[in-house]
Amino acid sequence: MSEVAKIRVDGQRLWGSIMAMAEIGPGQHGGSCRLALTDADRDGRDLFIRWCEDIGCVVSIDDMGNIFARRAGRNNELAPIVAGSHLDTQPHGGKFDGIYGVLAALEALRTLHAHDVTTEAPVEVVVWTNEEGSRFAPAMISSGVYAGLFEKSYAWSVSDSDGNSLGDELKRIGYMGAMSCGSNPIGALLEAHIEQGPILEAENQQIGVVIGGQGQHWYDVRLKGQDSHAGSTPMPGRHDALVAAAEMISMVQALALEFAPQAVGTVGQMSVMPNSRNTIPGEVFFTIDIRNPDDKVLEEMAAQIEGRVVAIAERHGVECELDEIWDKAPVKFDSDCIAAVAEATRSLGYTHRQMVSGAGHDACQVCLVAPTSMIFVPCAGGLSHNEQESAEADDLEAGCNVLLHAMLKLANRGGT
Amino acid sequence: MSEVAKIRVDGQRLWGSIMAMAEIGPGQHGGSCRLALTDADRDGRDLFIRWCEDIGCVVSIDDMGNIFARRAGRNNELAPIVAGSHLDTQPHGGKFDGIYGVLAALEALRTLHAHDVTTEAPVEVVVWTNEEGSRFAPAMISSGVYAGLFEKSYAWSVSDSDGNSLGDELKRIGYMGAMSCGSNPIGALLEAHIEQGPILEAENQQIGVVIGGQGQHWYDVRLKGQDSHAGSTPMPGRHDALVAAAEMISMVQALALEFAPQAVGTVGQMSVMPNSRNTIPGEVFFTIDIRNPDDKVLEEMAAQIEGRVVAIAERHGVECELDEIWDKAPVKFDSDCIAAVAEATRSLGYTHRQMVSGAGHDACQVCLVAPTSMIFVPCAGGLSHNEQESAEADDLEAGCNVLLHAMLKLANRGGT
Repeated sequence: MSEVAKIRVDGQRLWGSIMAMAEIGPGQHGGSCRLALTDADRDGRDLFIRWCEDIGCVVSIDDMGNIFARRAGRNNELAPIVAGSHLDTQPHGGKFDGIYGVLAALEALRTLHAHDVTTEAPVEVVVWTNEEGSRFAPAMISSGVYAGLFEKSYAWSVSDSDGNSLGDELKRIGYMGAMSCGSNPIGALLEAHIEQGPILEAENQQIGVVIGGQGQHWYDVRLKGQDSHAGSTPMPGRHDALVAAAEMISMVQALALEFAPQAVGTVGQMSVMPNSRNTIPGEVFFTIDIRNPDDKVLEEMAAQIEGRVVAIAERHGVECELDEIWDKAPVKFDSDCIAAVAEATRSLGYTHRQMVSGAGHDACQVCLVAPTSMIFVPCAGGLSHNEQESAEADDLEAGCNVLLHAMLKLANRGGT
Repeated sequence: MSEVAKIRVDGQRLWGSIMAMAEIGPGQHGGSCRLALTDADRDGRDLFIRWCEDIGCVVSIDDMGNIFARRAGRNNELAPIVAGSHLDTQPHGGKFDGIYGVLAALEALRTLHAHDVTTEAPVEVVVWTNEEGSRFAPAMISSGVYAGLFEKSYAWSVSDSDGNSLGDELKRIGYMGAMSCGSNPIGALLEAHIEQGPILEAENQQIGVVIGGQGQHWYDVRLKGQDSHAGSTPMPGRHDALVAAAEMISMVQALALEFAPQAVGTVGQMSVMPNSRNTIPGEVFFTIDIRNPDDKVLEEMAAQIEGRVVAIAERHGVECELDEIWDKAPVKFDSDCIAAVAEATRSLGYTHRQMVSGAGHDACQVCLVAPTSMIFVPCAGGLSHNEQESAEADDLEAGCNVLLHAMLKLANRGGT
């Protein structure tokens, strides 16, 4: 075994970094609330950059606010091997979703630094802007711009619920960089992440070697009935937008169960107007999220959603606007990247299985323009997007060791 | 016919007053947004008091902010004959709901003033505070305190969604009066109101002689499931509070239809947490409003609601808190007051029918402690709690003439 093959990350240092980041934008119930491009997000980014500069990395920021921290290689003409994820969280988010991927990549570079190991190609840590999509929809917008899925002008124009645009908020927090998003090459991208599902824990596996990601469709639904008095409007004459919405929510649930076991369907966001207890709701807005790893099944689900929403609206006498605001086909990751992860996992002796990602990730966008794979580690109860989200330090360390050695393998390809 | 029997209100003056009041706190779509105890509500109250003082009325304000504007009678030892309603509106409210009842009573007093008619008992216009209940629940809280249904300390303590208490807001706008609520006697109370339902218009009747009101139950429902990731949480392991809520909304609708044609059931207000499109909702709050004119049927509906809500929550694996925050038995109005309204209607030659009020009104509270009835006039399409709410000037004038002559009849009882 070579000397380099024997190096390991410092699991305690990794854990400490995650806990330090969680002190910025803490949630009310032990998790995190660090929404994209808020002051808390800025403070988290600033801390991350300080850490990178402490180990001699050179930091570049693009005009979508994506951060690339580079550790030079022997041959800096080669495209870098990049690892990372995102630092923004859900409103009731956990301490690990995204943050682990960024800080595991940082820990890999810290380990190279501590052991004075220089790779053939340069290695980089990336932080993608607004992965969660909970402040600015759609999610993964900046990795999407990098991958050519969204126009930059569109991405800058999307607004939060207070009407602040993403572009203005990038400038406000000082993270609209000079580099044009997508102009810097990526030789390969690896993203470590908690599974956010129950499978690894249930099967007692430490590592998920991720071979691809589910496809998904996102819809905005706007229903318009008629506000009217709750006491004196007989049931038959009503145009109750919330009663129609309720039936649609039940329909989304039923549809996902019809396509079991791989399909999921969720209504996560909703608002009711005028939202007064003795007025029949005249307007309702809600979102639909459906996902499936099989393209054909996903398209069939989408067709069913669209047909059933319209039929329910008609039955209840309410007007309906159904906008598909985003869709993403299922993706397959790069075979060399998958092999690098699988080989590192085996050589480190961790239990593992192959899997498909249920959640969307920045890696599922960038894989369209660069070789990519992911590394999953278990999280307690499969729980994520929840302040109670948790993961074991041992598993986080194992995933980080896999990341380090997969990066080494990819960065030293063609080298000695 | 006596000279007094011939006097009529000025329909144009009445219409002008309603339109002038609507300029305070206008809605975005032609209606009104003058929530209880806001600055707009204060401005509306100020204008009303100016109008009353212009015709020599003496204004008293009680410590629930209820306003009583008195026109002296010949015998001021007699309890006054009172007419009025409320000036607050729903968030997307109309120009007539409540306002008509206040300004019709003012118009009746203006007519007495113009014709220099003095009644035996004094006559008063009343404005009740926070009838709508959309800023501070429960509705009709101040007429409720007057009627002994609520403790004053409780009423002062209820808060809006920003945490401002009703008592503090009363003080803030300068309407916490010196008189103790309930201490001033009411000889009889008449409330003119738009029907807020479709019956008079459908039957082409000008006046509804109201003999009583529906009973109602109000519930707050809080569901607690588990926030979790929308992509990677398989359907069977979910605890989706919104899916459970959707089934409950459909259940409320179905229940009201089971008790057709008199029953109504409505979910008007709802909030979803964390309200993010790719997170399974862990918490939902919503309200239920059920009404029926028959006490036994209403109690059966309430028992069904309570049983079914619990069963649905259990089936979906979510915790459930169901609080009945308010209940009100059906009411029957006073036979003398009903007779005064019916007689005035007949002598004026208006088409009319008897009816039960579908909506709750301040009169439905005060009737527990004072003789009471109501006068309904048609509104377009039965539409209310909606900015498009509208009524014909002729119908408003007719209802106001009925109010004037019913007041005269009651105020001159025992007189000459």
